[in-house]
Amino acid sequence: MILTNTHISTLQSDDSFGLIEHGAIAVRGETIAWVGTAKDIPVKYHDDVAHDLGGRLVTPALIDCHTHVVFGGNRAREFELRLNGASYEDIALAGGGIVSTVTATRVAGEDALLADALTRVDAMIAEGVTLIEVKSGYGLDQDTELKMLRVARAIAKARPIDVRTTFLGAHAVPADYAGRADAYIDEVCIPALRAAYANRLVDAVDGFCEGIAFDPTQIARVFDVAMELGLPVKLHAEQLSNIGGTKLAARYGALSADHVEYATDADAAALAASGTVAVILPGAFYTLREVQAPPIQSFRDHSVVMALATDCNPGSSPLTSPLLAMNMACTLFRMTPLEALLGMTAHAARALGEKNRGRITAGSRADMNVWNAAHPAELSYRIGFNPLHSRIFKGSL
Amino acid sequence: MILTNTHISTLQSDDSFGLIEHGAIAVRGETIAWVGTAKDIPVKYHDDVAHDLGGRLVTPALIDCHTHVVFGGNRAREFELRLNGASYEDIALAGGGIVSTVTATRVAGEDALLADALTRVDAMIAEGVTLIEVKSGYGLDQDTELKMLRVARAIAKARPIDVRTTFLGAHAVPADYAGRADAYIDEVCIPALRAAYANRLVDAVDGFCEGIAFDPTQIARVFDVAMELGLPVKLHAEQLSNIGGTKLAARYGALSADHVEYATDADAAALAASGTVAVILPGAFYTLREVQAPPIQSFRDHSVVMALATDCNPGSSPLTSPLLAMNMACTLFRMTPLEALLGMTAHAARALGEKNRGRITAGSRADMNVWNAAHPAELSYRIGFNPLHSRIFKGSL
Ligand SMILES: [Zn+2]
Ligand SMILES: [Zn+2]
Repeated sequence: MILTNTHISTLQSDDSFGLIEHGAIAVRGETIAWVGTAKDIPVKYHDDVAHDLGGRLVTPALIDCHTHVVFGGNRAREFELRLNGASYEDIALAGGGIVSTVTATRVAGEDALLADALTRVDAMIAEGVTLIEVKSGYGLDQDTELKMLRVARAIAKARPIDVRTTFLGAHAVPADYAGRADAYIDEVCIPALRAAYANRLVDAVDGFCEGIAFDPTQIARVFDVAMELGLPVKLHAEQLSNIGGTKLAARYGALSADHVEYATDADAAALAASGTVAVILPGAFYTLREVQAPPIQSFRDHSVVMALATDCNPGSSPLTSPLLAMNMACTLFRMTPLEALLGMTAHAARALGEKNRGRITAGSRADMNVWNAAHPAELSYRIGFNPLHSRIFKGSL
Repeated sequence: MILTNTHISTLQSDDSFGLIEHGAIAVRGETIAWVGTAKDIPVKYHDDVAHDLGGRLVTPALIDCHTHVVFGGNRAREFELRLNGASYEDIALAGGGIVSTVTATRVAGEDALLADALTRVDAMIAEGVTLIEVKSGYGLDQDTELKMLRVARAIAKARPIDVRTTFLGAHAVPADYAGRADAYIDEVCIPALRAAYANRLVDAVDGFCEGIAFDPTQIARVFDVAMELGLPVKLHAEQLSNIGGTKLAARYGALSADHVEYATDADAAALAASGTVAVILPGAFYTLREVQAPPIQSFRDHSVVMALATDCNPGSSPLTSPLLAMNMACTLFRMTPLEALLGMTAHAARALGEKNRGRITAGSRADMNVWNAAHPAELSYRIGFNPLHSRIFKGSL
């Protein structure tokens, strides 16, 4: 197959959109075989089936590298209660907060969890996502953590999308372990991780390193098990305060440190040194009305690679639009449209440890989007608008 | 036609969602004939064609009462330039700002303007909008102002949606009248208004009352002509500062005062006394990163009716999602989900002077939405997600 009459943003390097006007892309199987200007199409592709894209913009497909799309229930009533003046205590007393999601996730059947997750995944596919990361973490018991990971795996069977799973047993301390976080790590989290690994359900290991969740020492114990199992790690770090999560993640050579609003220059230097990606999550910043933006300029100064994701979750970021996350990154954090697009493509791939995705270059996976847009800056400029014309997944239009 | 097996949010009063479980709605022609619980369906509707809505939520259809969806070009490159560090002066020198939209709108043909506007209108229809207001104001010369209004009228012929047009000649002072705002009002704005009125292109008259645009005295001269012609008025007021626009609007019995971030308690009292709706526009607040939120609590205290709109425009609010405007109103301004839904339905209708829209009640226009949602709070809780199942426009599913 050869795509012709396109305006391509290749993202072949991080310096520019890599625009090719009057471009063409040859696809063989699931792989991009060649990209260049139409007049330079090699002879061997001249007999390929040609698709005229009408001059439309083509970019790498989007990748959402941080999501919690599998969960039971929703938190709309809690959202409403809070806006009607209920305090956090009122809401906790009414059974709200993460506890309500854990309860709903524990009781939900796998089919129901999958059906519910697919409504969110379908919204992402409609915006041109071809790869998502999905975390566990609303079970906080072994059975439910494994159930969530099975549902995450099932998404890739139910829809034309790839899924990478992440074990997030260290997401919160469940009610029955209140005040005994260490015991929860030892008695539930680590055994669940080993069981999930034995069932081939885990591609990476994550934790929530925060005053309200787990400290770096507790997270390190989980990461040590991940190392033993040969699993890459990543971390929710420095979202609400700085307690050393970013440096911990860097020390373990983590794929990514996520949120990082409160990261310092020293944290940025540590991320750069370890090659750990900073994953920027403006949806949670927006929803929680935080005021401390992540240190984008420091990340630039230290050449930290920045990815971008929806953080889709029922509590702090009920966001299913990667394009809106791109707009929020620009509007709220002053990232550039190029940084936003790299963050949802090439840099998101890197945050998932994927080598051959997120750029339009020979040898890369043929996952691409065709947009009703003239320039890639339009993708982050518009708010709440989806200009996707078509999506190419594994070489199929 | 009768809609059965529904969960209805009637919005029959402003105090609650007006929920009816196991509800039914009888529609005759373009009008809602009856609404109530399924067991109470009057005999005369028993033979109507029944549509089982599978227990889904039904609300009034959405109304976007403040848009600028007709314009030429877009401002994505300007958005990018600014995020790459360009100053407002740099952008002005590069031909950016409203001037670029005026230039692009003046040169665009009517068919091209319509096609471009329809991409935005289609996004709104996809979220269940059945009535939009559309303003002129990117012509700033008589021919282009009239062209914009003709395109606005044409939207309603091209798509199943109603349109109300607003003349906004007093939107900005064009370059050739720089420093001569009064002359622009006399020589261009008022003659263009009279011409548009003579061509039956105008349903209401608006202005931009701000330090960077027109002062209350200049706006009053335009409003006096509107009064003479029998046209209702509305005003962009108190968005960036307080120069008396809200009180002016109230004095003229305006349908609405829009933006109103800098409105005072006295302004709120004036709006309440004149029955003028405060139209809340969080998209512009978000895009411009404003810090002064509109005085929502003061509006509540004074019983000012609050509507909500996208303000869809290429510069300060390239937002085409009314659902996202609802989420932003809740998240950024702490409006409640009920206020957000009323703001996009019944109160938006009032801001357009429409009596029989925006509520599900016998005698109202049969414009309704069917949602894949269990509770109306979900509509503002989710971010960048469209749960619309189907839309009923003029009584047709
Ligand atoms: Zn997260
Ligand atoms: Zn406006």
